[in-house]
Amino acid sequence: MTYRARHLLGIEPLHPVEITTLLDLADTYVDLNRQAVKHSDVLAGLTQINMFFEASTRTQASFELAGKRLGADVMNMAMQASSIKKGETLIDTALTLNAMHPDLLVVRHPNSGAVDLLAQKVNCAVLNAGDGRHEHPTQALLDALTIRRAKGRLHRLNVAICGDIAHSRVARSNILLLGKMENRVRLIGPPTLMPSEVRELGVEVFEDMREGLTGCDVVMMLRLQKERMDGGFIPSEREYYHRYGLDPEKLAYAKDDAIVMHPGPMNRGVEIDGILADDINRSVIQEQVEMGVAVRMAAMDLLARNLRAAATDGAA
Amino acid sequence: MTYRARHLLGIEPLHPVEITTLLDLADTYVDLNRQAVKHSDVLAGLTQINMFFEASTRTQASFELAGKRLGADVMNMAMQASSIKKGETLIDTALTLNAMHPDLLVVRHPNSGAVDLLAQKVNCAVLNAGDGRHEHPTQALLDALTIRRAKGRLHRLNVAICGDIAHSRVARSNILLLGKMENRVRLIGPPTLMPSEVRELGVEVFEDMREGLTGCDVVMMLRLQKERMDGGFIPSEREYYHRYGLDPEKLAYAKDDAIVMHPGPMNRGVEIDGILADDINRSVIQEQVEMGVAVRMAAMDLLARNLRAAATDGAA
Amino acid sequence: MTYRARHLLGIEPLHPVEITTLLDLADTYVDLNRQAVKHSDVLAGLTQINMFFEASTRTQASFELAGKRLGADVMNMAMQASSIKKGETLIDTALTLNAMHPDLLVVRHPNSGAVDLLAQKVNCAVLNAGDGRHEHPTQALLDALTIRRAKGRLHRLNVAICGDIAHSRVARSNILLLGKMENRVRLIGPPTLMPSEVRELGVEVFEDMREGLTGCDVVMMLRLQKERMDGGFIPSEREYYHRYGLDPEKLAYAKDDAIVMHPGPMNRGVEIDGILADDINRSVIQEQVEMGVAVRMAAMDLLARNLRAAATDGAA
Repeated sequence: MTYRARHLLGIEPLHPVEITTLLDLADTYVDLNRQAVKHSDVLAGLTQINMFFEASTRTQASFELAGKRLGADVMNMAMQASSIKKGETLIDTALTLNAMHPDLLVVRHPNSGAVDLLAQKVNCAVLNAGDGRHEHPTQALLDALTIRRAKGRLHRLNVAICGDIAHSRVARSNILLLGKMENRVRLIGPPTLMPSEVRELGVEVFEDMREGLTGCDVVMMLRLQKERMDGGFIPSEREYYHRYGLDPEKLAYAKDDAIVMHPGPMNRGVEIDGILADDINRSVIQEQVEMGVAVRMAAMDLLARNLRAAATDGAA
Repeated sequence: MTYRARHLLGIEPLHPVEITTLLDLADTYVDLNRQAVKHSDVLAGLTQINMFFEASTRTQASFELAGKRLGADVMNMAMQASSIKKGETLIDTALTLNAMHPDLLVVRHPNSGAVDLLAQKVNCAVLNAGDGRHEHPTQALLDALTIRRAKGRLHRLNVAICGDIAHSRVARSNILLLGKMENRVRLIGPPTLMPSEVRELGVEVFEDMREGLTGCDVVMMLRLQKERMDGGFIPSEREYYHRYGLDPEKLAYAKDDAIVMHPGPMNRGVEIDGILADDINRSVIQEQVEMGVAVRMAAMDLLARNLRAAATDGAA
Repeated sequence: MTYRARHLLGIEPLHPVEITTLLDLADTYVDLNRQAVKHSDVLAGLTQINMFFEASTRTQASFELAGKRLGADVMNMAMQASSIKKGETLIDTALTLNAMHPDLLVVRHPNSGAVDLLAQKVNCAVLNAGDGRHEHPTQALLDALTIRRAKGRLHRLNVAICGDIAHSRVARSNILLLGKMENRVRLIGPPTLMPSEVRELGVEVFEDMREGLTGCDVVMMLRLQKERMDGGFIPSEREYYHRYGLDPEKLAYAKDDAIVMHPGPMNRGVEIDGILADDINRSVIQEQVEMGVAVRMAAMDLLARNLRAAATDGAA
């Protein structure tokens, strides 16, 4: 077995072989999801709890569908409207849930590191569904699967990540994953939206969009995370689009067969031209969503296998 | 097969034979729901997503129970608290969900026509759970089933629809359905609450409640849609009840065996006398709710059969 | 059969033998929940609806998991965001749900007696998940199971209940249950937080924590129900902790093997010292949560059996 981890907290601790194992399994779930009957029982009898301390339509829906299609008992907890109001700490919430014997705990939290902390307190497998500006590993994995299926490989590609890098856990997880798989990553954006530690990331940095896109295989746009910009320089949407919004003219600098990606939800006319986003010859944005369900099914399947293996080891 | 539609967007496109097919199947689900074990597997392996852009306890609950009792994987999305806030468009939300491969999408939206628009963008079957002032087809179908079971037929009946017609998608869908099945429909209410296109509906219009109820077989009360009255004339509740609230004295003008209906939730003492609403000899209000689950089971069952048939045709 | 009730509305109507039957069955569900596959089908084909008119993370989650693990179709209704806003009465909501043929209705409501009222209007089994200051029977049962497992018995124990007794339905249900099982109950707290009817409860009352704890087997702390304190005397948290917060020094007055309980969510440093709360040699707080799922499984299992027995009796 090439994947023996207990949690999926980030891309950082993963070995390239583990990433490949996960993507290979996800490929089989893409097939399952396209069938008329899209249901298996690999998680039957297990309990999956989704704890979202930040609202998220698409990520929570993707995890929920993934669990239900694999036969798990899935429970959503909207943490805003709950005990948080009564002043309970994150750790107490974790210990409480842990006592209910879940098997898989999917957590999104506004604070970087909160999910790691929580994972130390529970007996079940924890999946990070996004923590602050830290990591969003299933997003990077679904992006990797989308790229691999479109390009036929996941190495020696030139990938441009464009826009609001500084506030993006999506960018951070993608930089880590693409680097591990031996791709060349370029970051494109205004200096104000670059992370301070950019020199340590092993990437090239461009301020000019046309220069940065030249010769790229993959153009990965990011969402302007307005809700995470606190007090920093916020460009006007119109000026941002003029300089950094992806349109056919700027895309022409990339390779002819370059694919266009966006993690959603999109601000059309801000980060990306709406017509380009819908162009099925260039855009793989809908396929990213499709791969999201498959990748989450694969991740939960593998973690559940590891739980069972650990239980058997413990009993032996 | 007499029902080959892909979506259930409204009553308008339905043929009378399709309505009868749907109601006949719903009758069998009334029986299932009354049994000790109320579960089948006709939707097993399928994914149902409920997207409610307007809150609704009873309609969402009815669809959710209908899907779960048929074995579907059901997911609710409360769209207020989600990506809508982040500025995502309806179409992007639809495309995103579509990429997750749902089979049945149940949608309620405050804008007339929004559900039709959405249905054009997705591959799955869409059920309209109410869009603006346009249509609410499953409500009209459950009302039809309730009438047919109480009266033994669904034609040549005199049906009075009373109250706030102008703001009511329930009234509009009922007028369409009852007309198709060759019933005589009367609308009763103050001129300010009548739709402007009332002359084109093929109905009789009454301003006086006693006159309008005379000789009716079915009295269908509507909810005062205060939340949809924007700037128009709003009668005082007390005056409204005096003139248009249903009480035993006014009901005496209808036939002796006339039944009383209300789509709920009721404003007791505004649209209807509370004691009359609870009188099981006249009121079929609780039976309407019961029929609601059965009609939604039937509609989803038929649409799922059509999906499968289309998949087989495509494969052949 | 020793448990033939139709509802679980409170501890008050239960016979000691019924309590023991329920706890014995719950013990078997503790075992099920600890297994790798934690799923049975004793509620398969049944519909469970959770209606929470007050938000509650842990109680709703506990009931939801309990139902799903027993194979029920479980539906949550967040009643704040629903028809309540439209002015529908509790009774109309109950009648509406009843018409959808649920089997098990789990209800939390801010008003004492609301759940009893609702139970009179429906055909299904009703479980009280907390009503105002009245009762919270499954909490008392899970506390009883926790005590019985820790102490080996549930009689002739000295149990201290400490803190905000006046606002606590948890305290009220526990006093009733522990009394029925022939334990000695002491209430400890400031006079302002004692219920006015304290003389009728058959308990000893202490204002001094050290005096009250002396010789106790079980120390049950309560949450300061700030949200239920309307206009009364609210002590400062610091002074409250000084006089009534449980810490190792005060606990030393209880028996050496006394266990520490709290229904959660805890205000650490207000009702209880954080380190003591986490001390697995004294605190059974996490075990209370674990027993909660098991007790709710047992209660729903027994009520479902009674529903089926009643249906058979009716048919015979």
